[in-house]
Amino acid sequence: MSTIDFWFDFSSPYSYLASTWIEPLAARHGRTVRWHAMLLGATLAAAELRPPASYPLKGAYMLRDFERSARFEGAPYRPPPRFPIATHNAARIFWWLQAQDPSRAAAWARHGLAAYFAEGVLLDELPALLALAERCGIDAAQAQAACADPQWKAHLKQVNDQAIAAGIFGAPWIVVDGEPFWGNDRRPQIERWLAAPY
Amino acid sequence: MSTIDFWFDFSSPYSYLASTWIEPLAARHGRTVRWHAMLLGATLAAAELRPPASYPLKGAYMLRDFERSARFEGAPYRPPPRFPIATHNAARIFWWLQAQDPSRAAAWARHGLAAYFAEGVLLDELPALLALAERCGIDAAQAQAACADPQWKAHLKQVNDQAIAAGIFGAPWIVVDGEPFWGNDRRPQIERWLAAPY
Repeated sequence: MSTIDFWFDFSSPYSYLASTWIEPLAARHGRTVRWHAMLLGATLAAAELRPPASYPLKGAYMLRDFERSARFEGAPYRPPPRFPIATHNAARIFWWLQAQDPSRAAAWARHGLAAYFAEGVLLDELPALLALAERCGIDAAQAQAACADPQWKAHLKQVNDQAIAAGIFGAPWIVVDGEPFWGNDRRPQIERWLAAPY
Repeated sequence: MSTIDFWFDFSSPYSYLASTWIEPLAARHGRTVRWHAMLLGATLAAAELRPPASYPLKGAYMLRDFERSARFEGAPYRPPPRFPIATHNAARIFWWLQAQDPSRAAAWARHGLAAYFAEGVLLDELPALLALAERCGIDAAQAQAACADPQWKAHLKQVNDQAIAAGIFGAPWIVVDGEPFWGNDRRPQIERWLAAPY
C-alpha cells in the first residue's frame, strides 16, 4: 500500500483541520501518511496569489468559515492573536526531525498546528516555539540549532520548489496515488477515492 | 419557513453542480430557494481577484477538480468549448423571467447551467442562447428583447452591487438564515445547518 502525501503550512487553518483527520482516515484504508511542511507564501507567489484572507470580501468570509468549519469538524479552534504568521522556523524543526524519525516530525506537525490554532501559541516567536518543542519532548537547544542551520534552510527552500514544480499552490494539499486534492473540504472526495478511484 | 438564497453565475462550474442539489435539499427541510443570477466578474473585481482558473498552477488544478467534482456528484459534465464566457444575456433573461414567475426563472437557471456545462451550449452566442430559450418553452423574440432592454441591464447591475454589498465574492453563494456559505463543497455544512445551526 502506498503512502498518502500531506503538504501543509503551519499557518494554514484548513491544514490544521485536515491534520486532525488525515492519519485516522489513512489508517482505515491501510495507508500511511508522508507529511511535508512547506511555506505557503512561496507557492502562492508562484500562483500569483496573495494570502487568501488578505483579499477584500474574501478575507472576512474566510475568518467566519475557519471558525464554522472547525465547529463542523468538532476541532477546538481559537482565532490566533496574529494571522498569518511566518512559519519557516517551525518547518525547519519539522525537516530536522523528519531526517531522524518521520513519526516524530508528524507529531510535531500536529502539535504545532494545534498549538497555533487552538491555543494561540505564536510559532513565529522563537521562545514560544522552543517552549512548545520542549513540551513535545524535543530538545530545545537542538531545535534552535536546526532553525539556524543552513542545511535545513536549504532543504525547506528545496521542498517549496518541489511543491511548485508539482503544481501545488494551496494547503492542505493531499495526493493519493497521483491524484491531487486541495483543501480540508475535499475529505469526502478523498475518502471515496481511497475506497475506489472514480 | 424562510427561503434559502442561491447566488450563481451561468459560467460557474461549481454553481452548476450546486444547481443540481439545492432544490431537493431545500425541499427536504421544508424550505424554498430564491435564485439570484449575478456576474461573477463584478464580485471578483470588488475582491481584487481574477477568474479562479486564470491563475498559474490553480487554473490547471481547477479544471481537473471541476471534472472530478462532477463525477463525485454524479452530474453529467463536459468541459465547455470555451471557458469562462460572458453571461450577461443569460442573466438578463433570468431576471426578466423572475419578474413574471420565479419558478420559470429557476428552471431557466438550471437549464442554462446544464446546457453550458454538460452539452457545451455557448450561452454567450445569442443564436445558441435563444435556441436554448425556445427549447425551454420561452419565447425567443421576447427573450432577445429582454437581453437588450435597459431595464434588465440596470437590474442586473443593481443585483451585482447588492451582491458586493452583501460581501459576496464567489459562486455559488448560499445564504441560510443569514449564514453565508461559499462553494459547492459546503453542502455538508449547509445540510447540517438546516438541521440545526452549529
